Amino acid sequence: MKILKVFSDANWSASAVDLIKTGIAPHILIQSTKPSLSVLHQAGPDDALAEADIICGQPEVANVLRSTNLQWLHLTSAGFTRYDTSSFREQAAARGLCVTNSSSVYDQPCAEHVFAFMLAHSRRLPVALRSRAANGSNEWTGLRNGCSSLQNKSVLILGFGAIAVRLLRLLGSFEMRIVAFRRRPRGDEGIPTVSLNDLPGPLALADHVINILPENSDSIHFINEQRLALMKPGAVFYNIGRGATVDQAALIAALRSGKLEAAWLDVTSPEPLPENHPLLNEPNCFITPHIAGGHENESESLARHFLENFQHHICGTSMIDRIM
Amino acid sequence: MKILKVFSDANWSASAVDLIKTGIAPHILIQSTKPSLSVLHQAGPDDALAEADIICGQPEVANVLRSTNLQWLHLTSAGFTRYDTSSFREQAAARGLCVTNSSSVYDQPCAEHVFAFMLAHSRRLPVALRSRAANGSNEWTGLRNGCSSLQNKSVLILGFGAIAVRLLRLLGSFEMRIVAFRRRPRGDEGIPTVSLNDLPGPLALADHVINILPENSDSIHFINEQRLALMKPGAVFYNIGRGATVDQAALIAALRSGKLEAAWLDVTSPEPLPENHPLLNEPNCFITPHIAGGHENESESLARHFLENFQHHICGTSMIDRIM
Repeated sequence: MKILKVFSDANWSASAVDLIKTGIAPHILIQSTKPSLSVLHQAGPDDALAEADIICGQPEVANVLRSTNLQWLHLTSAGFTRYDTSSFREQAAARGLCVTNSSSVYDQPCAEHVFAFMLAHSRRLPVALRSRAANGSNEWTGLRNGCSSLQNKSVLILGFGAIAVRLLRLLGSFEMRIVAFRRRPRGDEGIPTVSLNDLPGPLALADHVINILPENSDSIHFINEQRLALMKPGAVFYNIGRGATVDQAALIAALRSGKLEAAWLDVTSPEPLPENHPLLNEPNCFITPHIAGGHENESESLARHFLENFQHHICGTSMIDRIM
Repeated sequence: MKILKVFSDANWSASAVDLIKTGIAPHILIQSTKPSLSVLHQAGPDDALAEADIICGQPEVANVLRSTNLQWLHLTSAGFTRYDTSSFREQAAARGLCVTNSSSVYDQPCAEHVFAFMLAHSRRLPVALRSRAANGSNEWTGLRNGCSSLQNKSVLILGFGAIAVRLLRLLGSFEMRIVAFRRRPRGDEGIPTVSLNDLPGPLALADHVINILPENSDSIHFINEQRLALMKPGAVFYNIGRGATVDQAALIAALRSGKLEAAWLDVTSPEPLPENHPLLNEPNCFITPHIAGGHENESESLARHFLENFQHHICGTSMIDRIM
């Protein structure tokens, strides 16, 4: 048996390193001396990568393409903007490189995060948690009547992948009307799914518009002035995809005009927003700092997910979360 | 046909009054000159009540018992503390008085409210919405790892009624271990349900303890020092029942000692809490001002619920939300 070299530039916890070393033995783990700061950061260059059979982490594209032995690239994030170019896709295909990401690790926390946004909004938590309104007062009546149910509302999900599938399951008990948008509907989504041409109709009907789009050359400023204008007056917009998919100036205008009731964003461009950025001062804009994928023992669950795929790689069985 | 007199001291919106008048015609609506301020307030006395065949609202107990023609009392709230005494129950039974409440109107919003609390807690929204932590910073990593999933967690629901049934449905997609407590388990709850004697076990296991208990002589300070001591270290406590069911001094102690990770309360005693009440300054105590039942067009949905029961009353069919 050939001993495989697994190079990783991810910023693993000590227990995750133990998990991986034990899990891949007798194959060996080579840890980068310049690991990525987080799953959202590219790692520094490391010569050790050049000999790797498998890379796991957030490597530079140029280095990946220079490592001649490479069979499999595993990304420790769900997003893969850096690699989502026709140039990389072509070169990966030409050399038979398998590329996987960690969608399965992040789908549940991301779905729960946007669900938390939706319920926090409909139950008016940002205002209600600061209120000490007396029962029966005008403030109290306004707050009570301002609450709404998710039940029977319309949802549009932009981007249909692992997170959308998980979100559909969570929303299943709310009797909502849910439509998805994806570039190329497959027909197996389980809900009505439209492509770009048919998007205006669902955009105009949705009470809740949930953006889970990845960032690539097609999706930059996907949510722009024109699409915001198409939305239902009073709609609520959520973004747990990538900040660059939204024209933030247009979003601010839509919030100020009252076209949108609110925006709940886990991602912005840049992150964090600079002090005094107008979105920070919009009373109906609620921002968390790109934590939707976060969860207890994240490093260990990423390690376990990698190990599951490692077994598939060794056995030649179908890889999980394969993206190329 | 005898024309029935429906007396109502509820604080209806104009459109709800229209709905009721149209819905009960040719029977007549008599509106009190002293309506209750809200569904949480008792109405003032009104002589017109004495001749009513049906009362709908929040009347004084003494007046209800004096109205000799009364066949049916309908409460516009889910709670019915005022009437939940052995004396009232006995007199109602003796004269064949049917008593209904409005649980069906409030079960969905209340279930969504506590669900919003649970997700806001597990996704750390109170901290995350104020944070501008940079990706990869220590604050960011702490926030991400501090998030947790509801999936596979243990839940204990105190009080099994309409809200609990609805909550079970909403939580159904989260693969949680759910146990309920009620005084007299019936066996048809659909989940393991314990009575008082068997409560300590589930109390010690639950990650999330949800209090939906009504207020009556049995439930005052149900959550006391002793039961808090039995809970799992780091549990989260939620209350959407009634404030008086919790010994607030004991709750503060449990929060300060770190025994409880947090408390999320929609109800307190009194409401609102006086300025400088220690619960208001507990960093892990989150309070909304008794709005869990609130929803858009609440007055109209209460009216429609009354009208549905009115039809049952006229036809002699089984009443909805009958409590006595």
